Amino acid sequence: MIPAPFLLYLGHSADALGIKTSRGLAEFRREDCVGEFRHDDSPLTLGLPRMTMAEAVAAGAKTLVLGIAGAGGKLPAELIADAKAGLEAGLNVAAGLHERLRDQPELASIAQRSGLQLFDVREPPRGLSVGKGTPRAGHRLLTVGTDCSVGKMYATLALARGLQARGVAADFRATGQTGILIAGAGVAVDAVVADFISGAIEQLSEARDDDGWDLIEGQGSLFHPSFAGVSLGLLHGAQPEALVLCHDPARPHMRGIPGRALPDLGLCLERNLEAARLTSPGVRAVGICLNTSGMDRDAALRLCAATQDRLALPCTDPIAFGVEPILDRLLCTDISTRSTTASH
Amino acid sequence: MIPAPFLLYLGHSADALGIKTSRGLAEFRREDCVGEFRHDDSPLTLGLPRMTMAEAVAAGAKTLVLGIAGAGGKLPAELIADAKAGLEAGLNVAAGLHERLRDQPELASIAQRSGLQLFDVREPPRGLSVGKGTPRAGHRLLTVGTDCSVGKMYATLALARGLQARGVAADFRATGQTGILIAGAGVAVDAVVADFISGAIEQLSEARDDDGWDLIEGQGSLFHPSFAGVSLGLLHGAQPEALVLCHDPARPHMRGIPGRALPDLGLCLERNLEAARLTSPGVRAVGICLNTSGMDRDAALRLCAATQDRLALPCTDPIAFGVEPILDRLLCTDISTRSTTASH
Repeated sequence: MIPAPFLLYLGHSADALGIKTSRGLAEFRREDCVGEFRHDDSPLTLGLPRMTMAEAVAAGAKTLVLGIAGAGGKLPAELIADAKAGLEAGLNVAAGLHERLRDQPELASIAQRSGLQLFDVREPPRGLSVGKGTPRAGHRLLTVGTDCSVGKMYATLALARGLQARGVAADFRATGQTGILIAGAGVAVDAVVADFISGAIEQLSEARDDDGWDLIEGQGSLFHPSFAGVSLGLLHGAQPEALVLCHDPARPHMRGIPGRALPDLGLCLERNLEAARLTSPGVRAVGICLNTSGMDRDAALRLCAATQDRLALPCTDPIAFGVEPILDRLLCTDISTRSTTASH
Repeated sequence: MIPAPFLLYLGHSADALGIKTSRGLAEFRREDCVGEFRHDDSPLTLGLPRMTMAEAVAAGAKTLVLGIAGAGGKLPAELIADAKAGLEAGLNVAAGLHERLRDQPELASIAQRSGLQLFDVREPPRGLSVGKGTPRAGHRLLTVGTDCSVGKMYATLALARGLQARGVAADFRATGQTGILIAGAGVAVDAVVADFISGAIEQLSEARDDDGWDLIEGQGSLFHPSFAGVSLGLLHGAQPEALVLCHDPARPHMRGIPGRALPDLGLCLERNLEAARLTSPGVRAVGICLNTSGMDRDAALRLCAATQDRLALPCTDPIAFGVEPILDRLLCTDISTRSTTASH
């Protein structure tokens, strides 16, 4: 419903993690992206043609996507100024920050006058309820992480596409702004009222009886002091049958908190399984996804193999090496479980 | 700032836990309560004179407090109708539900016309930030629970008053609607945007260097599938030096979820300590508070003694038996820690 094609915004950003929404669209909806907008001080690129707002409009762009995100989701003055320039050039504007575009009187007024739209994709749906943890039908997998922004969305999308390629019904359930922009639907779980975290996920990923899978995008980390509450509520609401742990081996410290070490992978997985059992007593881990984008191929393969040995779970980089070993583990045990059930 | 005296609302409620906000005010600010309003079908009472709206106004009441709360904080039609009747009788109206009084056009219009005020105490402060978990100075105690509504607020208030009686600086930090109405300040942590749970508590309970204590009211339970995210974020934001576990031995199942058993006290305490260590590595448990209001005195004393033996922690009912054993444990170890520090 957000009109494509898109002009992807990098702004002044020098933080590769901060532009993850623009990067996600460039990766997963590249056919809908005509170019990137960045100021001279940004050293980043998505490999798309660099364009001014006017050039993007001439190239057919319909919407400027402010695909950057800092902790707290603030809307700084420079972003408002660039949104205004986008509107004045004739672009709709989409953003996924906590602070809403539509709450900026100047932007709202220009948009209304110009017949353009402002999209706040982090706005939660109305009428959410508290979660109940009532057992519900269906297969659900959740990605969890050692930290924020370690590749949970990429892994989840790769797993969904991998299942679909095998002919298994599979739906990606987006829980963050980037995922929502890619999927066209979802709930930004970190933006709901705290009482409704697990309820929002129960509503996002409803019972299903088609033997297909819901692949639910995780958020944050149980070990991140800013966001663990979101991660736990999401875990309880997801009621996952299977967990995949995601990790970035190059991360020097927890996102946004210099000096705070990342948790051990085994401990992180155990704590997630322990917490998940509250609503999904039979939950099991089925794999590890590493983001090895900063490593050479041999080192990445060696790290995956070593991690696989240490944790006794399939380990891969979902982008570099695919997710087949994890899908094998997921479906193999799943089939054996079903056979056992069927023989009763 | 909410004008007293109050008329406390019970409405049609037959659920003793559902009226906990009215009950809390009757308990802790009784001098400010002139009466209770209930319909004929409510079997409950707070022991205050039953009054119509008009009788309450004649008795001096300034504000009708809609002190009832169901899961999800909805504002049902019957409550809106009674709020309207209160306004028409000349009372301000206060409520602590997720759905806001001021969002009801009819109530807003009557209030404006009559010069009366609507108070939505669950409205979070503006400008919250994400938590960081940065170590901060000061002594902080947090109450945690096996379930919702097991007496965490009562225990926290009793501990604050107990410390004050010993001449120790102590401040109650309210995190729920009832506590906020009692204290006149606080943050309804279950109503903040999910990303800001721990940040809201860091802001509520700032660093202090006066050797006094912040006594922070806990919410929910790590074992409640509806609210565990709130509980975990609160735990991380509180950065507590000390935990007190609260429990209602008469609770048949987790609040609102028939069939779901309460956790074992030892397991519940261990999980809370484990999670708290993320931001407060030296956290320790200092006591157990039981709500024994439904038991006879001898049975209650026996249960406290047995629990104390089993968990090797002081155990008491804070209302029936006071909190002295917990304060002894809290301050004793605290003093020994300080002596050690001083001798360095």
